[in-house]
Amino acid sequence: MRASVIGATGFAGVELVRLLLGHPKAEIAMVTSESSTGELLNKMYPHLKNRFDKSLTSMQDLQGIAEASDVIFLALPHGHAMKIAKELKNSDVKIIDLGGDYRFQDPKVFEKWYKVEHLDPTTRAVYGLVELYRDKIKGSKLVANPGCYTTSSILALVPLLKNKLVKTKGIIVDAKSGTTGAGRSLKLGSLYESVNESFKAYGVASHRHTPEIEQAYSDFAGEDVIIQFTPHLLPCDRGIYATCYADLADNVTDEAVAEAFASMYGGEYFIRLLGKGVMPELKNIRASNYVDIGWEIDRRTNRVIVVSCLDNLVKGAAGQAIQNMNVLFDLPEQMGLEALPIYP
Amino acid sequence: MRASVIGATGFAGVELVRLLLGHPKAEIAMVTSESSTGELLNKMYPHLKNRFDKSLTSMQDLQGIAEASDVIFLALPHGHAMKIAKELKNSDVKIIDLGGDYRFQDPKVFEKWYKVEHLDPTTRAVYGLVELYRDKIKGSKLVANPGCYTTSSILALVPLLKNKLVKTKGIIVDAKSGTTGAGRSLKLGSLYESVNESFKAYGVASHRHTPEIEQAYSDFAGEDVIIQFTPHLLPCDRGIYATCYADLADNVTDEAVAEAFASMYGGEYFIRLLGKGVMPELKNIRASNYVDIGWEIDRRTNRVIVVSCLDNLVKGAAGQAIQNMNVLFDLPEQMGLEALPIYP
Amino acid sequence: MRASVIGATGFAGVELVRLLLGHPKAEIAMVTSESSTGELLNKMYPHLKNRFDKSLTSMQDLQGIAEASDVIFLALPHGHAMKIAKELKNSDVKIIDLGGDYRFQDPKVFEKWYKVEHLDPTTRAVYGLVELYRDKIKGSKLVANPGCYTTSSILALVPLLKNKLVKTKGIIVDAKSGTTGAGRSLKLGSLYESVNESFKAYGVASHRHTPEIEQAYSDFAGEDVIIQFTPHLLPCDRGIYATCYADLADNVTDEAVAEAFASMYGGEYFIRLLGKGVMPELKNIRASNYVDIGWEIDRRTNRVIVVSCLDNLVKGAAGQAIQNMNVLFDLPEQMGLEALPIYP
Amino acid sequence: MRASVIGATGFAGVELVRLLLGHPKAEIAMVTSESSTGELLNKMYPHLKNRFDKSLTSMQDLQGIAEASDVIFLALPHGHAMKIAKELKNSDVKIIDLGGDYRFQDPKVFEKWYKVEHLDPTTRAVYGLVELYRDKIKGSKLVANPGCYTTSSILALVPLLKNKLVKTKGIIVDAKSGTTGAGRSLKLGSLYESVNESFKAYGVASHRHTPEIEQAYSDFAGEDVIIQFTPHLLPCDRGIYATCYADLADNVTDEAVAEAFASMYGGEYFIRLLGKGVMPELKNIRASNYVDIGWEIDRRTNRVIVVSCLDNLVKGAAGQAIQNMNVLFDLPEQMGLEALPIYP
Repeated sequence: MRASVIGATGFAGVELVRLLLGHPKAEIAMVTSESSTGELLNKMYPHLKNRFDKSLTSMQDLQGIAEASDVIFLALPHGHAMKIAKELKNSDVKIIDLGGDYRFQDPKVFEKWYKVEHLDPTTRAVYGLVELYRDKIKGSKLVANPGCYTTSSILALVPLLKNKLVKTKGIIVDAKSGTTGAGRSLKLGSLYESVNESFKAYGVASHRHTPEIEQAYSDFAGEDVIIQFTPHLLPCDRGIYATCYADLADNVTDEAVAEAFASMYGGEYFIRLLGKGVMPELKNIRASNYVDIGWEIDRRTNRVIVVSCLDNLVKGAAGQAIQNMNVLFDLPEQMGLEALPIYP
Repeated sequence: MRASVIGATGFAGVELVRLLLGHPKAEIAMVTSESSTGELLNKMYPHLKNRFDKSLTSMQDLQGIAEASDVIFLALPHGHAMKIAKELKNSDVKIIDLGGDYRFQDPKVFEKWYKVEHLDPTTRAVYGLVELYRDKIKGSKLVANPGCYTTSSILALVPLLKNKLVKTKGIIVDAKSGTTGAGRSLKLGSLYESVNESFKAYGVASHRHTPEIEQAYSDFAGEDVIIQFTPHLLPCDRGIYATCYADLADNVTDEAVAEAFASMYGGEYFIRLLGKGVMPELKNIRASNYVDIGWEIDRRTNRVIVVSCLDNLVKGAAGQAIQNMNVLFDLPEQMGLEALPIYP
Repeated sequence: MRASVIGATGFAGVELVRLLLGHPKAEIAMVTSESSTGELLNKMYPHLKNRFDKSLTSMQDLQGIAEASDVIFLALPHGHAMKIAKELKNSDVKIIDLGGDYRFQDPKVFEKWYKVEHLDPTTRAVYGLVELYRDKIKGSKLVANPGCYTTSSILALVPLLKNKLVKTKGIIVDAKSGTTGAGRSLKLGSLYESVNESFKAYGVASHRHTPEIEQAYSDFAGEDVIIQFTPHLLPCDRGIYATCYADLADNVTDEAVAEAFASMYGGEYFIRLLGKGVMPELKNIRASNYVDIGWEIDRRTNRVIVVSCLDNLVKGAAGQAIQNMNVLFDLPEQMGLEALPIYP
Repeated sequence: MRASVIGATGFAGVELVRLLLGHPKAEIAMVTSESSTGELLNKMYPHLKNRFDKSLTSMQDLQGIAEASDVIFLALPHGHAMKIAKELKNSDVKIIDLGGDYRFQDPKVFEKWYKVEHLDPTTRAVYGLVELYRDKIKGSKLVANPGCYTTSSILALVPLLKNKLVKTKGIIVDAKSGTTGAGRSLKLGSLYESVNESFKAYGVASHRHTPEIEQAYSDFAGEDVIIQFTPHLLPCDRGIYATCYADLADNVTDEAVAEAFASMYGGEYFIRLLGKGVMPELKNIRASNYVDIGWEIDRRTNRVIVVSCLDNLVKGAAGQAIQNMNVLFDLPEQMGLEALPIYP
């Protein structure tokens, strides 16, 4: 299987390269970057030295890339994928987009939250959260890989929403992200001194992952769900930690909550249920494709607190994209993604 | 003013020593430690070298310590202060307790959450959150210095509760603490490798600061308030960051929220109001006695999110204790606490 | 191939488990711990959840462990291995010791620096620095796996010593280690607050890795080499960084230095030569078995500065042990060790 | 005393502002920035909120700034100070330059290492390392404040060089710096992800602080000293740690070494001698003007290893500049610099 990475020099792009190099059935066809065309990727990222010696090309010749590839990963800022996918509409190549362009059933939602016009509003992609939409992904051509915050938040509460164990009103997701979630751009706020020994909320009441979480929650709840989503920046490299609050429906037992998680995720390779009263730790999933989920039930407040965490560059981006690739090409879902977390 | 520190070898104790050494009107009379009696404090904490050369004594001779002191700071695990304060009941020495023993108006609440019997249940201390209870602190003899999470959480929402701008039901405080908040005990979870590059929730639905926050919220709301409180451990040395969620009452304007904060805290030296839409950063208050407060109003969810942060060892412990001392002894409240935050 | 890990609960032990689980030809027979016998390893180390469900046994029944295993890894503090290897002298099982007991050709050197009597002084192990002693390792029964500082320091200067390009007098190795190098013991100096935002030298002029480095330097120089070795503690989880200083011999060209490295390491999978003027970065080798080496030549001082780095838990401990296992069992040397570094 | 800061938005500039705000005899007249003229400094640096409300002006009107000030601090990249000091030659204002322009007795040395022409080669400044050149600083008009690496390295070995206890050949300074040492510029290498969990050498055999250290060493040794200087980047905010190696002269006793340090630094407020066998830790001097010095003597190698550390933004920049100001204006040297280190 020949895979190309469009936008290989960002953190998600280079993580795709790392994972593809360890995938037994994939080979990397092309890697692109418009700002560093012609440069060796392993010069920008010396951790790849001796293992990957391709130079970056331009994505200008899209048809050529498509012909050289069975699958193309788009790891670009939003707004680019809709041009590329549109142009490749008649190609046989599979496309997995790691950006936001195709994540919404309703392109108006995209336009409202991303504040740009959608240039390919009639195309519908499959939402690539494999554990929830596996069957739809098989056989599709264009997969919208979910965001990092969203994967963590959605997986945390969907079992309870689906089983009507929680109320759909009043849900709060208080989420925390490692700094790679902010990308590799040169901003004062991304300097070591700005992040180290600090912590801050940002995008309160306005972060673009909000409607993406709401879309999945609504889908499984069977009704419109509006949530409060608050992201924060953590002083560490990798990781998403979502603390999710929901009011319990009437007469919900501890067992019903446990059973909802077990029945939905019991067979999932990448989801580890820690159970009631056991809180996940970011470090236990680092550099792996795992999602760890634990929860607590507070009878004083009649609320369930579900906590989930994942590595934003793996299950929150490149790993999930490879998982989607495996589904698209009928490979075992965990192929190339079995690496254990790095601890400590 | 002669000040003694009972329990000087913990993080709060040694921070008291640091701040007292910089206080123009205080001198340190005695520092105690039962496990390191006889040792030089500056040998355990070499950052004090050349500036503090007293040895640690035992707290066994309490009356002697009281006679040598105008004020005694208790920086001990809970359960000790109630013995000490009881024994010193007839002494003239002022006592500022940094632990939980005397923080509750109702000793039954203490017993329920701390799971020990209260040995001095008839004594009432003043709750030493100066910005809220200043007048009561003046002239008192025993001050219960608030906890770190609680100071941050209480200050964030009290102006809105007092002015009935938020509902008293459904309040959630999602809080994050630097590692010094967990003290200096030898546990696997406190090792560098356990904390670094990680993040976790703990004490969910059961943390002892919950009833302390509820007590102050209820006091200002004029009715019983039950909250959801979730603490997390941050990979950094110092800091409390509280993200507080409350449902807006009907017809509350942005201006009413801003006015509630301004009228209550406008004249406070140690509270900096960042305003609507500006989120505090932990690093901007490090090593200072400041509390930074910002907020956002979400009309989609009809909720206000108030975010506050402080240094858990300063405004969350030793700094607030000194502030209480200043009030008790009629000194300018900011004396010895004017150091600017250390940035970066 | 059945492998057992004696002392599986330390950082090196659990890293062995992680790597063995990813090794295509190995299966883990037994894992032991005297302090946690009977406990599930994945309960102490939840990153292993769903992937390893063996309980810890005692190492008391050594013969039983030997019969159940083709190879035994000893990940214990020094002083234990010499008892175990002695007891298993007549067993067929291969032993790879990650401690110091068998690293010295002369047991007197061990006794002098480790300050304990050697209980098995007549047994000689092979020194398991594969790149230098590969041929001797093949077919041996007892391998002394080198230390982390030593692997990094030895590989940095041996090519120059062997080719007489540097003087044997005046060598200085200024080395820095991530905190996992200090093990997982409960000490005040290992708490997060002690390490974070700090840095310190320790074991100056007395660290036990000194004679181990000297032994290899002397072996390749063909004469006795005495060095200055200074370790420091870095505020990060993993990594050894060795800055090595040596006086150039007369008339040594830049090319001769480059050629010495190339001829010795050009074919080595795990050594990446960055060349003159390119300094390694710790992060580029994290969680991998790579050693990155760069150097600079200073004509003002007539000195060469060779800088090497590696992950102390992988190439500096568990990874190198697996590499030794591969050599012992005639497997491709990189089997199970091909994972790319995790960046960032 | 009216003080102005030219270049107030870099880390050293804003640290000057912090320290001046806490100085009992200083008031800040003007703060300048060419890129942010007109902006409030406390908007860029919110830790100053409520305590400093001046806007940044341009340094174009130098004479105006000089008239409004008794002392001007220049916190600019090298190459600017020589223009400014030249232009203010006839003004009475005192100038303390934190850059490299005037640090060399021989402007040719500046030109060689900084690779720019010196525009004011006939002006000589006093080298502002107060502990060594106090008498010369008094009464001078232009002070060249030393660099951070240099202050740490010079103070470590000067007592031994002055007393001929070490050889002048073969000195190596292996130094490590927190990230603020690299300034606040937007470079990939300064991003959080590049620094965190990493470590690297840079500027090997070519760093500009080399000749500055050599100049002071030579001055006290009474002969030309050439050294090896190797800087490294530490994953922490603040701090310089210099591990200095020198060969002992013949027949030097432990006592002679201790006596050299004691006689030279015994009366210095800002130098804390830890003694033989005690290694400094970066955290013990954080945010203070202290220099901690310890040493070890290795009789195997006949070498002394002196280790010193300081906060690069305080004693290595702004604090030392204030110390110089105090000397220039006949104030107690520690005025405004007495704050204890922040620990942890």
